[in-house]
Amino acid sequence: MEKWKFQGNQGLKSSAVSVRGVFNVLMQSISKEKEVVHLCRVDPTDNPLFSADPVAAHAVSTAAHSGNFNGYPPTFGLPQARRAIAEYLSRDLPNKLSAEDVYVTVGATQAIEIILPSVFATPGANILLPRPGFPQYETRAALCGLEVRHFDLLPNSSWEVDIDSLEALADDKTMAMVLISPSNPCGNVFTYQHLKRVAETARKLGIFVISDEVYAHIAFGSNPFVPMGVFSSIVPIAANIERNMEITSDPPTFMQAAIPEILERTNDEFYSKNLDITREAANALYERFKEIPSLICPHKPDGAMAVMVQINLSQIEGIADDVDFCVKLAKEESLLILPGVIVGLKNWLRVSFGLERSAIEEGLSRLKAFCLRHAKMSQQISA
Amino acid sequence: MEKWKFQGNQGLKSSAVSVRGVFNVLMQSISKEKEVVHLCRVDPTDNPLFSADPVAAHAVSTAAHSGNFNGYPPTFGLPQARRAIAEYLSRDLPNKLSAEDVYVTVGATQAIEIILPSVFATPGANILLPRPGFPQYETRAALCGLEVRHFDLLPNSSWEVDIDSLEALADDKTMAMVLISPSNPCGNVFTYQHLKRVAETARKLGIFVISDEVYAHIAFGSNPFVPMGVFSSIVPIAANIERNMEITSDPPTFMQAAIPEILERTNDEFYSKNLDITREAANALYERFKEIPSLICPHKPDGAMAVMVQINLSQIEGIADDVDFCVKLAKEESLLILPGVIVGLKNWLRVSFGLERSAIEEGLSRLKAFCLRHAKMSQQISA
Repeated sequence: MEKWKFQGNQGLKSSAVSVRGVFNVLMQSISKEKEVVHLCRVDPTDNPLFSADPVAAHAVSTAAHSGNFNGYPPTFGLPQARRAIAEYLSRDLPNKLSAEDVYVTVGATQAIEIILPSVFATPGANILLPRPGFPQYETRAALCGLEVRHFDLLPNSSWEVDIDSLEALADDKTMAMVLISPSNPCGNVFTYQHLKRVAETARKLGIFVISDEVYAHIAFGSNPFVPMGVFSSIVPIAANIERNMEITSDPPTFMQAAIPEILERTNDEFYSKNLDITREAANALYERFKEIPSLICPHKPDGAMAVMVQINLSQIEGIADDVDFCVKLAKEESLLILPGVIVGLKNWLRVSFGLERSAIEEGLSRLKAFCLRHAKMSQQISA
Repeated sequence: MEKWKFQGNQGLKSSAVSVRGVFNVLMQSISKEKEVVHLCRVDPTDNPLFSADPVAAHAVSTAAHSGNFNGYPPTFGLPQARRAIAEYLSRDLPNKLSAEDVYVTVGATQAIEIILPSVFATPGANILLPRPGFPQYETRAALCGLEVRHFDLLPNSSWEVDIDSLEALADDKTMAMVLISPSNPCGNVFTYQHLKRVAETARKLGIFVISDEVYAHIAFGSNPFVPMGVFSSIVPIAANIERNMEITSDPPTFMQAAIPEILERTNDEFYSKNLDITREAANALYERFKEIPSLICPHKPDGAMAVMVQINLSQIEGIADDVDFCVKLAKEESLLILPGVIVGLKNWLRVSFGLERSAIEEGLSRLKAFCLRHAKMSQQISA
């Protein structure tokens, strides 16, 4: 019997916490008795309610049938796609972007994967990440040897950045900070004034801002979405990622070729319809949470597709923490919600609302029943 | 004036040698007087000669228009795509693959990106890579802290693996070896007997084999392509990449949905036509090299889409090395060929032949003219 030396990367196994990894654990806990309800995945695209505009399929199909876009694309993206994206993004910016400012990646995940190693300049460098945040940043930072320091988002101040804690964390090895705006997973939309303060703080600290704006078009509350690029004269918001781009996978060429048509021809009704659905879902969710005394939702969501809800463990019996809560919820109610610990907040829940109303109503009914069943005796009597 | 701490990753800048990076340098050297001829990129897909089968565009278009495949795919790939790929690959294997054996990635580049960190088990681990090879392996290994050791492919033995040097390189920190089969950039197809010897050697060394078979279907010489999976009872050829898969980008869902139709409906004539074109191009190239005394092509290609050619510098004047050769060739002849140093062989050339005949004839005429012009006086007289 040979002894194989390959053991797998143990560091990777222990450090990699991912939304999907936890999701898979919860899936295994589900009881088969009830139909599953997800308040978990932030993936509106597989929901018939948020069906893609037919323009997108048409554009992709045309590009595929043309036969002109089957080769490798240029390293940074197809010129016509970069140009169309630059024009599209420039609509909201004082300093217009050019095609050369745009790098086309395989989704936001690859953008993170590319930008973090490019930030990692020197041994011992660190990066400031929001808590709660999006765990891909933590995982990728660990993989490229970048030390992670967390600044807090403040639940009782509309989830704004704790500027003092941000400043206290930074030192001469701090290279950058990440801001997710509109916020995933908190569901708030940062104001112009607050983003300006963040930009000024970053300038003072001499660090640049990685602004994750994947939910740019999902702002349905009173604060309009403000792109961080508005403050590009205050602080650098782009990184030198050229070299690294040469060794990564490319988005399929014909899909890049479809981008100009998609951006040009998708009409405003498509976006406004989806915003209406999302706003209503968020409002319904927020109202229903008020009915559950052991859960606290500190901020009514006005953007993105998820919200953070605190578990008041003092009012609940037989549940150790947020993971235990979610595993038992999956088992007893076939309801999937992610524990807050995976986004950095222990004993909170991350609840997705990019869903049809019926799923939200059914999900919240089950959540309420679960919380009442596990409420401490004194609570049950008063409830 | 603020002092920005961000300097970029210097290590990345100096270590990352890529085919595309060098390609971009050559592009800048080109004189504008002649039309450019590429014997450089191994990208047949943007060549009208190798146009994609219409089945592919149809399958992609159908999947896009269905609206059923717009959400995130499962971590390891869409089940129907994994099943179709497993069935397709199993046709040539004694031990059949199941859908669970297949992980769908964004091209071969992402497969490398995923598999290497998963191999990197312990600090100080090393990996054995072929020389010449495909530089993505070197770059990715450096990025994940994996020490690279090179074993030679032998030009005068049909580019087979130097088994003795392979064995001498390995120690108890060696985790794996990479074999590219059919060989990129050498253009040879390994025999069953040789692959079996490689598998037995890997077993003896206790390392597993990463078999890069992207050119599996481009074997047009007398040696048939043999998948390394044939020897899976001798040596492990798959890695535990599950955990890492959860943090990477996914191939677009609707494109995965198109895979079963593409694999099922693309007919054999498509492959055989392309093989005929490639075989003729390879033969023409090989014959034309014989006419250029300062270049030596040790092995007539019988697979893949590139071949290695040695520069006899003793017969050439005013040229320092392979990079200098290729830069002057671009400048004087508008002919693009990659220097061998980027695939690990200094003073060789890597010549692509996945091209129409006219490009090969024109390219080789220019190459011959260039070599004659730079030949040492004694050579010019005898030529």
